[in-house]
Amino acid sequence: MENADIAALKAKNPDHWMKATAIRALALDAVAAANSGHTGMPIGMADVATVLFEKHLKFDAANPQWPDRDRFILSAGHGSMLIYALLYLSGDKQVTLDQIKNFRQLGALTAGHPENFLIDAVETTTGPLGQGIANSVGFAIAEEIQRAQYGKKIVDHNTYVIAGDGCLMEGISQEAIGIAGRHSLGNLIVFWDNNNITIDGTVELSDKTNQVQRFKASGWHVQEIDGHDPEQIDAAITAAKKTKKPSMIACKTHIALGHAAQDTSKGHGALTDPEQLKAAKDTWGWDYGSFEIPADIKAQWEAIGSRGAAEREAWEARFAEVSGQKQKRFNRAYAMEAPNKLSAVIKALKKEVSEGQPKVATRKSSEMALKVINAVMPETVGGSADLTGSNNTKTDDLGMFDTNNRKGRYIYWGIREHGMASAMNGMALHGGIRPYGGTFMAFTDYARPAMRLAALMKIPTVFVMTHDSIGVGEDGPTHQPVEHVAISRATPNTYVFRPADTVETAEAWEIAVTTKTTPSVMALTRQGLPTVRTEHKLKNLTAQGAYVLADSEGKREAILIATGSEVEIALKARDILQAEGIGTRVVSMPCMELFAEQDESYRRKVLPAGPVRVGIEVGVRQGWDQWLLGERGKNGKADFVGMDSFGASAPAGQLYEKFGVTAENVAEKVKAMF
Amino acid sequence: MENADIAALKAKNPDHWMKATAIRALALDAVAAANSGHTGMPIGMADVATVLFEKHLKFDAANPQWPDRDRFILSAGHGSMLIYALLYLSGDKQVTLDQIKNFRQLGALTAGHPENFLIDAVETTTGPLGQGIANSVGFAIAEEIQRAQYGKKIVDHNTYVIAGDGCLMEGISQEAIGIAGRHSLGNLIVFWDNNNITIDGTVELSDKTNQVQRFKASGWHVQEIDGHDPEQIDAAITAAKKTKKPSMIACKTHIALGHAAQDTSKGHGALTDPEQLKAAKDTWGWDYGSFEIPADIKAQWEAIGSRGAAEREAWEARFAEVSGQKQKRFNRAYAMEAPNKLSAVIKALKKEVSEGQPKVATRKSSEMALKVINAVMPETVGGSADLTGSNNTKTDDLGMFDTNNRKGRYIYWGIREHGMASAMNGMALHGGIRPYGGTFMAFTDYARPAMRLAALMKIPTVFVMTHDSIGVGEDGPTHQPVEHVAISRATPNTYVFRPADTVETAEAWEIAVTTKTTPSVMALTRQGLPTVRTEHKLKNLTAQGAYVLADSEGKREAILIATGSEVEIALKARDILQAEGIGTRVVSMPCMELFAEQDESYRRKVLPAGPVRVGIEVGVRQGWDQWLLGERGKNGKADFVGMDSFGASAPAGQLYEKFGVTAENVAEKVKAMF
Repeated sequence: MENADIAALKAKNPDHWMKATAIRALALDAVAAANSGHTGMPIGMADVATVLFEKHLKFDAANPQWPDRDRFILSAGHGSMLIYALLYLSGDKQVTLDQIKNFRQLGALTAGHPENFLIDAVETTTGPLGQGIANSVGFAIAEEIQRAQYGKKIVDHNTYVIAGDGCLMEGISQEAIGIAGRHSLGNLIVFWDNNNITIDGTVELSDKTNQVQRFKASGWHVQEIDGHDPEQIDAAITAAKKTKKPSMIACKTHIALGHAAQDTSKGHGALTDPEQLKAAKDTWGWDYGSFEIPADIKAQWEAIGSRGAAEREAWEARFAEVSGQKQKRFNRAYAMEAPNKLSAVIKALKKEVSEGQPKVATRKSSEMALKVINAVMPETVGGSADLTGSNNTKTDDLGMFDTNNRKGRYIYWGIREHGMASAMNGMALHGGIRPYGGTFMAFTDYARPAMRLAALMKIPTVFVMTHDSIGVGEDGPTHQPVEHVAISRATPNTYVFRPADTVETAEAWEIAVTTKTTPSVMALTRQGLPTVRTEHKLKNLTAQGAYVLADSEGKREAILIATGSEVEIALKARDILQAEGIGTRVVSMPCMELFAEQDESYRRKVLPAGPVRVGIEVGVRQGWDQWLLGERGKNGKADFVGMDSFGASAPAGQLYEKFGVTAENVAEKVKAMF
Repeated sequence: MENADIAALKAKNPDHWMKATAIRALALDAVAAANSGHTGMPIGMADVATVLFEKHLKFDAANPQWPDRDRFILSAGHGSMLIYALLYLSGDKQVTLDQIKNFRQLGALTAGHPENFLIDAVETTTGPLGQGIANSVGFAIAEEIQRAQYGKKIVDHNTYVIAGDGCLMEGISQEAIGIAGRHSLGNLIVFWDNNNITIDGTVELSDKTNQVQRFKASGWHVQEIDGHDPEQIDAAITAAKKTKKPSMIACKTHIALGHAAQDTSKGHGALTDPEQLKAAKDTWGWDYGSFEIPADIKAQWEAIGSRGAAEREAWEARFAEVSGQKQKRFNRAYAMEAPNKLSAVIKALKKEVSEGQPKVATRKSSEMALKVINAVMPETVGGSADLTGSNNTKTDDLGMFDTNNRKGRYIYWGIREHGMASAMNGMALHGGIRPYGGTFMAFTDYARPAMRLAALMKIPTVFVMTHDSIGVGEDGPTHQPVEHVAISRATPNTYVFRPADTVETAEAWEIAVTTKTTPSVMALTRQGLPTVRTEHKLKNLTAQGAYVLADSEGKREAILIATGSEVEIALKARDILQAEGIGTRVVSMPCMELFAEQDESYRRKVLPAGPVRVGIEVGVRQGWDQWLLGERGKNGKADFVGMDSFGASAPAGQLYEKFGVTAENVAEKVKAMF
């Protein structure tokens, strides 16, 4: 775009231009001051964002977490100065001018990429590309389910997304597009920043996909507009709000509009040259100093920020009119508080199981727990990536979420582990929903980027990972996780539960659906396991991470520490050792992270100095030495029985033999250390 | 499809029918015998596979690894009995009838999913969905590059893929489709098994994407056929071979054709009911016992298997005519042997660096190594997922792979880490190519499924992961790996290199491009690092995994073990401690896996009993206790300086301070243990 064209843009819509250019100037100044960041994208998308905020987005800057606000998601998270500028201009309380000036600096809320846990008005943490658009599918589903539950008077908002070429090239975007199209998520509106520039050069370098055709192929409503023309933007949003399909608006834009780096990959990055900065501002007709926003423009923006206050108040009035019970349920779900009944139903299940002592796979145990949980927690939403019958994630009362059954609380995600995980994060972020979803544990790999973000974002998404070891059997090493429990344990702020039986599974679920800031990974077996918690305890022992399941008789000479399916093996090994007069304690350790959180006196009680220790888990040793060699353990007096290679294809029992994960081998390891 | 229709199919093409039904019967019998597996897919795709093998696939069953064969990839790997049946019938030497009878049993080559490392004729390991179709893009690129290098007389084959609905729902398929479309990979032909069934039910349950439109949007040639009509199949393959675009043939099929479970999700799994099995065989007109293939049908199939022998011989004759130098280069590349010159150029680089002692980021060091490697190894193919300038993966001599420059050895993958990783695996599997590709290390998560498969498949793909810690700085925690080095270390058969300077980086690369059965992960810094290997050694010290970089002066009281960017910190801590009279050894540990492979006497020499130990790595501790507490270490006499949370957004130096990864802190930890 030539300078004359920019002057014409300004002349045609002078008020709009100055508001949009306030965003541009802040992005330019902040990135230059930080000497780091991405200038071009906020400049290119300033017009779209301005029209959206001014004319369509339902928000109240003074109340950024009002439940019925529209959601705005910057999937192209590297353009973070766009959202920070929008928030500062419209009067957000957290994002002050000081924060803008401290963009990307230590302790600032204005981090390199937008982070939901730093700024209330940031709906989700973006940066890893494609996540925002996939989150947004979850936001939109959450809204549909809640509208069905609470009525349109209480829940009626849109989810707006800005996505770039990078988001659309990431495979996860296809999964998101497919899910949104299948479920006709009409309140989802995606702006594609069609600037034809990536870091390496023009898009043609790596892609020639016709995005319009691609979205249409999955049932989306698609429009193509000039992303610098406020009238076209306004009309397109109006049309998008009307259609019952999810909408994609392809916005032809110029990255770094008006800057020397316009329309180049250089424009994608940090534009810091002072002369070029000055020249860009001249081209824009922006005659103000660094970080300077004229009072009248700031006032116009603040008016936009307070535009939604009346709508919020009207909503509050409507909310006050719904039944007290509904209000309570709604508020409880948004506060992520468990219902009072939860504790009782979990205890009842535990008691029943400890008495009946069924032998079931923990994936089945998980279903048993979900049955009692889903019945008392209408905020749970379950699903599976096309493994419903294997993951045991569906309970009868949920109903299938569908275009004609928005009350359905079970989602058939299709073969889309990544899209499922990211959409679940979106549901959790939306508020009012506790999502869980299943796949095979080996496919943790597919869901990883979203699982990490759940931990970083401090949201309690639950990942139900069944078929958690070589116990998978004949499907072979592609389907047998050996490193995935370790992978999830390596991730900060993640609870990895590997329960030994139905009691521990119920306890793990109780924690997973009550925690507020930590995602949970449920590692569950394919194969049947005996009930090992045969004595009913009211207390949730899993909450301590590890506990003494069976103590030694006689002098305590060995401690066997095991998780999940190997607790049974530990108990058998204890029988062998006790029969030979070797006093042996069995510690069940369903959650290493929770055990690490216990005070030292408890940890010492469970793992005292002295006895030899053997860890038993049919996965890699990585992560175990903390408990075997650390925590009063001793080199030469600790060993491990597990896997140090990929698995193989054969019936599960034979694989346990082949890889030496047997009670006999455990007993031998203990004796070898005396 | 009704029984009468099946009878009509049979009547119309009786010879074809019986050949195809031999596949069906073997799949039915083998899955029933194993009581495990997937029966319906091989039954549904038997017609397509039969026509492909009989009339088009260039292969010689007696020589499954002949370089110019067509490649056949079963992306829908759960239908493994399809490929095992095809191999047995056509006379593969490994896949005998006994192997078919032992489907999925311990020690059998006929694993649950097809595994390239068990059967020569299996091109790639599939099962995790979408991988096969993404691998195939790499196969097709490898072929194009080699055709440009060696001429059409030597390299001229097709890559055929069978993909199911699951493959097409996985996001990675979109990345693969985009890459193939962009590069007009005309020799790539994908059959979509359009049976409308997934495990959870019909496809409509989770998707309504128009796949034809979707593939066309990315520039593919698309045909739609009846997947049970041999004439249509034949004509479609003929047309697909002619077009210069990648081809997708949508094959409308009936899963479990002729079985009671036809067209149902039950038909997707293991069909084991004896009466239904008998009835299906009756419907097919297959009057033979379990695992029985009539001699005439077996003979027809064996004729198909030997059909390519003449073509192979003709190829061998043509190959004998090319220059000796080209033959040698071709054979060397296929044997994965490094050229003689490699060792010398690496040594020369090491010498130059040890003398010049530049301070550079190891991502830049990596580029320096690649410069000398790429110049002597024409089999390397580089690339990046849109971070070329950041990953430093492009050397000037490579040239950009493009539709008009098939000789180009550098691929702009776009923002597609997963597709890149999986396509790289395909290139390695094709033979004759050593692929490497870059992204940010935090996006290991996106590439994980393919990185795991590289390890499982025993192929030497190189993953160049730059920006390997909080040293990333202002981009913040979304872009700062803290657990990813641990994640790759948790994976069996993976070398994780975290070099401390250019010398170690060159050594790591030397190992990565000479190893034959292990993938490598290069963890490289964004930030500049001093040269720590200031004394030139001919020996590749990194090959030992860890070594004494600076020994203690005076009594050895402390050992600091560090990797990558923290070796500099260890050396500074050593200065502090030595100044206080505390004899301190610094061990650089660029590759834990290689150190673990050394004999105990070497490991003891590097890590003797006695001194206190501190590990330093700006990532999670998981994986470190093996060296701190194990290997003659002692509880209470070992500590770790690193990360136990996600990072933050700020300049890198400030983050190292904030998280306490400093020489001063290391020295304090050492002293606290006395």
